[in-house]
Amino acid sequence: MSVYTIVSREELSDWIARYAVGELVDMQGIAAGIENTNYFVATTGGSYVLTLYERMPIEELPFYLHLIAHLAREGIPCPAPIADRTGALFGVLNGKPAGFVTRLAGRSVPSPSGRHCTAVGTVLARLHLAGKKFTGHLENRRGPLWRQQTARAVRRFLSAEQTALLDVELVAQKNLADAALPRGAIHGDLFRDNVLFDGGDVSGVVDFGFAAVDELAYDLAITVNDWCTRADGALVDRHVHALVRAYNAIRPLTAEEKIAWPLLLRAAVLRFWLSRLYDVHLPRPGELTHAKDPLELERIMRARAAAGVVFPFL
Amino acid sequence: MSVYTIVSREELSDWIARYAVGELVDMQGIAAGIENTNYFVATTGGSYVLTLYERMPIEELPFYLHLIAHLAREGIPCPAPIADRTGALFGVLNGKPAGFVTRLAGRSVPSPSGRHCTAVGTVLARLHLAGKKFTGHLENRRGPLWRQQTARAVRRFLSAEQTALLDVELVAQKNLADAALPRGAIHGDLFRDNVLFDGGDVSGVVDFGFAAVDELAYDLAITVNDWCTRADGALVDRHVHALVRAYNAIRPLTAEEKIAWPLLLRAAVLRFWLSRLYDVHLPRPGELTHAKDPLELERIMRARAAAGVVFPFL
Repeated sequence: MSVYTIVSREELSDWIARYAVGELVDMQGIAAGIENTNYFVATTGGSYVLTLYERMPIEELPFYLHLIAHLAREGIPCPAPIADRTGALFGVLNGKPAGFVTRLAGRSVPSPSGRHCTAVGTVLARLHLAGKKFTGHLENRRGPLWRQQTARAVRRFLSAEQTALLDVELVAQKNLADAALPRGAIHGDLFRDNVLFDGGDVSGVVDFGFAAVDELAYDLAITVNDWCTRADGALVDRHVHALVRAYNAIRPLTAEEKIAWPLLLRAAVLRFWLSRLYDVHLPRPGELTHAKDPLELERIMRARAAAGVVFPFL
Repeated sequence: MSVYTIVSREELSDWIARYAVGELVDMQGIAAGIENTNYFVATTGGSYVLTLYERMPIEELPFYLHLIAHLAREGIPCPAPIADRTGALFGVLNGKPAGFVTRLAGRSVPSPSGRHCTAVGTVLARLHLAGKKFTGHLENRRGPLWRQQTARAVRRFLSAEQTALLDVELVAQKNLADAALPRGAIHGDLFRDNVLFDGGDVSGVVDFGFAAVDELAYDLAITVNDWCTRADGALVDRHVHALVRAYNAIRPLTAEEKIAWPLLLRAAVLRFWLSRLYDVHLPRPGELTHAKDPLELERIMRARAAAGVVFPFL
């Protein structure tokens, strides 16, 4: 359960008065998500999600909130931030930056089919195109510098075999340094639990907590690694084709992006493997949530490094 | 020493009479080369190489000889076959198909510099362009079917670790099956010992015994793997850039070829690793030559599989 900051009904009732959303009817903590505290909040005016931003640096909040406001206006099914009566997109609640966003219908799909993959490829490409008009800028705080620092921090907890795998990947990623790939606003974490489906359609893209400006094809690689991977870590070619073909139909990938594809997949695994290693070996004090198992990502890391993946010839 | 078939001075004197090359002055067996028997032959008319084709199936000889004749006419510095007085490009000598080609000046460069790599990239691209006008056809007899058969044959001699490496590669290569890469006449074996330099210039491209019609970029990968590899198996980026940039300036690689590049490099290593394993573990009866060490190729195989190579962003 990932409620780090308890908000009482009374505290929320008081706070909600600054919004034109009616009276509080019901509130309920949300277990999913490991970065923030979230509550479902029902009011006489509608259904919302209240988020208390636990880990996100406050200076990054404007980027995040303006991005999802922009994307929602562009028709991407993502949470739209609710401005308070003064126009502010966030305030402070129980000492934490906090704000409301619209609550979206639907539920996530843990075992996606090819059709789900097609739908996700489509929505990600639309998100990237919509993001082109967004002028905000935020460097990816899970970028190359973070990668180096985190690798240094977790190194002493690794076996010789894990260390070898990590070192190969860190060196391999240097091959990407010279590639000038198209950049723009990325979601950065479009795993299965961050996409809601209503029937066969995507009804919600949620949890933009790792959004940033970075390489668009890297975002696609993050997505493919989670949506199209078998239990043993190998890619499901049929799902990869479905997702990438749908994406490519809306935002055709450049030759450079296709060339860089195998390394982008590995960069994407490495980023999550490192953060899981960090969360397991160096948990924050008072951590309430169970850290996710890094072994799953290690398995994918080995599979991607060994598989000889090239960009699928669609 | 790779003279499999001894030819006496008398035998050669008799045989040479069918050519318009003058009288035999001198002959000398050549140690280099593991596929054929070769002699340097000096006559009153010029300097030639006499080759007795030991392993090449006789039905493939016309492809081979017409290809080098074509390339020589197109200005590629390769051996030009000498027709006998009847116009035939080969005859039979001591029971072996045999023929003369022109002898080229220069010597091979075991430790090439970046400039040598540039020169080799240039000549290979010119060879591929010149080959486009050649209408002969021969499937690569070191292609996917041979790979499967050879892997089966050598498997029982491999350690568990080697078997795992081999299996990963065989699976990885399936990713290439759907790629439709530009094809044409390839040299197939453009290792350092098959290029002669005179000063800084390429004076000879020799030993077309593995020439076939196959993917042009695969030929480039074979070349890069031999010319641009350090002792530990890793690529020398500076040399790769020099060679590939020079090639690309003359025959620009397609996006598909760049995408497939990491797997082409691995396909190229795999082909030579397998043939060396075969030669060591299943030597032909009466083999006179020392088989080359497969460990060198195994090292390169591991390095290519682990390195996360992408096509160099030139």
